[in-house]
Amino acid sequence: MTEPFDAVDVIVAKREGRPLPTEQIEWLVDAFTRGAVADEQMSAWAMAVLLNGMERREIRDLTFAMIASGERMSFEGLGRPTVDKHSTGGVGDKITLPLAPLVAAFGIAVPQLSGRGLGHTGGTLDKLESIPGWRADVGSAEMRAQLADVGAVICAAGADLAPADKRLYALRDTTGTVESIPLIASSIMSKKIAEGTGALVLDVKFGSGAFMPDRERAETLARTMVELGADAGVECVALLTDMSVPLGLAVGNAVEVAESVEVLSGGGPADVRALTLALAGEMLALGGQPDADPAAALDDGRAMDVWRRMIRAQDGDPDAPLPEARETHVVTAERDGVLAEQDARAVGVAAWRLGAGRARQGECVQAGAGVLLHAKRGDAVRAGQPLATLRTDDEGRIPRALEALAGAHVIAPAGTGVPERPVVAGRITA
Amino acid sequence: MTEPFDAVDVIVAKREGRPLPTEQIEWLVDAFTRGAVADEQMSAWAMAVLLNGMERREIRDLTFAMIASGERMSFEGLGRPTVDKHSTGGVGDKITLPLAPLVAAFGIAVPQLSGRGLGHTGGTLDKLESIPGWRADVGSAEMRAQLADVGAVICAAGADLAPADKRLYALRDTTGTVESIPLIASSIMSKKIAEGTGALVLDVKFGSGAFMPDRERAETLARTMVELGADAGVECVALLTDMSVPLGLAVGNAVEVAESVEVLSGGGPADVRALTLALAGEMLALGGQPDADPAAALDDGRAMDVWRRMIRAQDGDPDAPLPEARETHVVTAERDGVLAEQDARAVGVAAWRLGAGRARQGECVQAGAGVLLHAKRGDAVRAGQPLATLRTDDEGRIPRALEALAGAHVIAPAGTGVPERPVVAGRITA
Repeated sequence: MTEPFDAVDVIVAKREGRPLPTEQIEWLVDAFTRGAVADEQMSAWAMAVLLNGMERREIRDLTFAMIASGERMSFEGLGRPTVDKHSTGGVGDKITLPLAPLVAAFGIAVPQLSGRGLGHTGGTLDKLESIPGWRADVGSAEMRAQLADVGAVICAAGADLAPADKRLYALRDTTGTVESIPLIASSIMSKKIAEGTGALVLDVKFGSGAFMPDRERAETLARTMVELGADAGVECVALLTDMSVPLGLAVGNAVEVAESVEVLSGGGPADVRALTLALAGEMLALGGQPDADPAAALDDGRAMDVWRRMIRAQDGDPDAPLPEARETHVVTAERDGVLAEQDARAVGVAAWRLGAGRARQGECVQAGAGVLLHAKRGDAVRAGQPLATLRTDDEGRIPRALEALAGAHVIAPAGTGVPERPVVAGRITA
Repeated sequence: MTEPFDAVDVIVAKREGRPLPTEQIEWLVDAFTRGAVADEQMSAWAMAVLLNGMERREIRDLTFAMIASGERMSFEGLGRPTVDKHSTGGVGDKITLPLAPLVAAFGIAVPQLSGRGLGHTGGTLDKLESIPGWRADVGSAEMRAQLADVGAVICAAGADLAPADKRLYALRDTTGTVESIPLIASSIMSKKIAEGTGALVLDVKFGSGAFMPDRERAETLARTMVELGADAGVECVALLTDMSVPLGLAVGNAVEVAESVEVLSGGGPADVRALTLALAGEMLALGGQPDADPAAALDDGRAMDVWRRMIRAQDGDPDAPLPEARETHVVTAERDGVLAEQDARAVGVAAWRLGAGRARQGECVQAGAGVLLHAKRGDAVRAGQPLATLRTDDEGRIPRALEALAGAHVIAPAGTGVPERPVVAGRITA
């Protein structure tokens, strides 16, 4: 096969900061998927994109080309609107768990294709897999049936969805080319658009525990994704949310499932409930129910009913006890005062090192591992009071987790004012 | 083996414009040579270097690390000084052929490790291989013996010299990361320093036929290489030379050997003779003979004697007729006037397409192919007068060569002043 373009010419054009024509972007993604553009060429191109950027039109072309590399799902004919949610990931971010059944309780279909965790942020599937019997693999026919019946499904994305993105993401991970807004935005949106959702709410995080700590860059990412949604005919709203402290009190797998169940019971930490309700409100509005009252559905058990049916539909037992870690270690406050900082990234890395996350794709995670926090930023604390309990099956992991936690908790003198940081810091629409 | 650094960290540091510590550069080159850093990682790193640059100390570290990846030759104990020359390559640049024997005629050893051509600039070895019997492969013991006996050797570099550079160069060639001054300078200088020469004269070209057309960038490259030489204890002088028009009247393989023999006979085109003498003067000065008269050695046959001995030592027959191309095609002047332009790059591409060069490593070249020019920039021409003769064994190649030549020759009205451009435009020393 004679190629219509030369990979070196395309790389050099981007290296020199020139926008690439649509046909070149389409060719590049297709040729990369076919293996006609080599990994070392694609990584040099990705570095040039990272350093020189892309125009809105180029990002759209890239996203569409990645969608075109695989199959595109459709939920038309389901008889109800579909609305999905994507989070850029954070520490203690279990929001998908209560959110999907909550929104489904209002008759909206929520098809949540999720991933496994890598590094210091956990994965939704890893968390759900701590429920005895639950399975992440759901075929597309089964997914459709579950959406029609239960209304919500959280499962693994099939390999046929945007395969070019999968290949490119794996390459970026090892070549220092992850942190590019055009590449991140097109990666997320290609999967979400290929998945066939009618509308999409984005939870874009900033702060130490976020993938993109800088608030301005997170905002640019959010805007880029909302624009991409508009270009693809998928209505999008993004919330810009704070990830400088962990969400809730539980960071790990089973511990986050337990906290999600608390929220579905009408309780749970205030920040987890607040963010769940904020995202549910956006999803309901996009699904045509701007006046729905999601708080009531948490408090009266409707969301919990859907949760139980959703877990059962995927062979999980919602009543089975969750796995417990074999070892625990308590971290206490060194002095009296007020908790002025509780660094999200440090807590995330500690949970990861305890066995809740993986360093490499394919590694196993421990269902019971994680960190349980006993105080939140702004709380008054006394010397000797427990601040956090570390959980792991493997005692040997505790020292390095403690190392990660060193300095994560800053205790200021009693009476120091600790300004509140609202979880939802901004809202971006097309 | 546990690696002391992580490739992604090193790539990200350079991506963010930070200078890399010496140990990281040494590790990167070593790990790349061992295969512990993958091609796709090295190409992303090369793109980051191309876009963000390197400090003088980093370039030195990179050069030394590439030298350390292989063996280092030494010509100590030879009883005479060694001086080498490197050209960044140009159209019709056969200067090494008369230059090496000319300088050797003064008792200086000239160890010329040369390459084969790729793209529109020819390779010294390709040219010499048009001489019946001549061979480029010379082992290091034989090389030493020939230097002691004849004084000059032009041969292929062994695979053991800076192997990291060979791998990196091959990778850069396919990933759009060739045009980086730190990478070019370290590539050239690592080979020349590993080769063990005592001093080095650099011919750095600018203009359309040069690898680096922009004069300012060529000057920066020259300065970078002279600095690297100083850092490595190899005395260097660089001449900045014009490559906007071809050197001499012959562009190809056998035709360039014939023109070189003319120069060695005291004749030849004025520009080829002038550049040969300018470079010889620099080499003789570095070899301790600032007052030597190289012109006399061209005119009285001393240089020709060394040439004949040098060719014979490598099994070539200096008296054998050179190969002729089977087909010729004459390009004539379209009107009367003065030749205002004769684009070097266009002539180089035409010769390449006629079969004098190769598109891919390993391809064969035609000994007789090339372009013979019949007028030089600044000459008065008459309509219908031959401007160039194309030579090839394969008639089918002529149309694409003519395409390349279209517009290469610009004829201005008679009497138009065409300002002279001296071949040597600048001189850079430490």
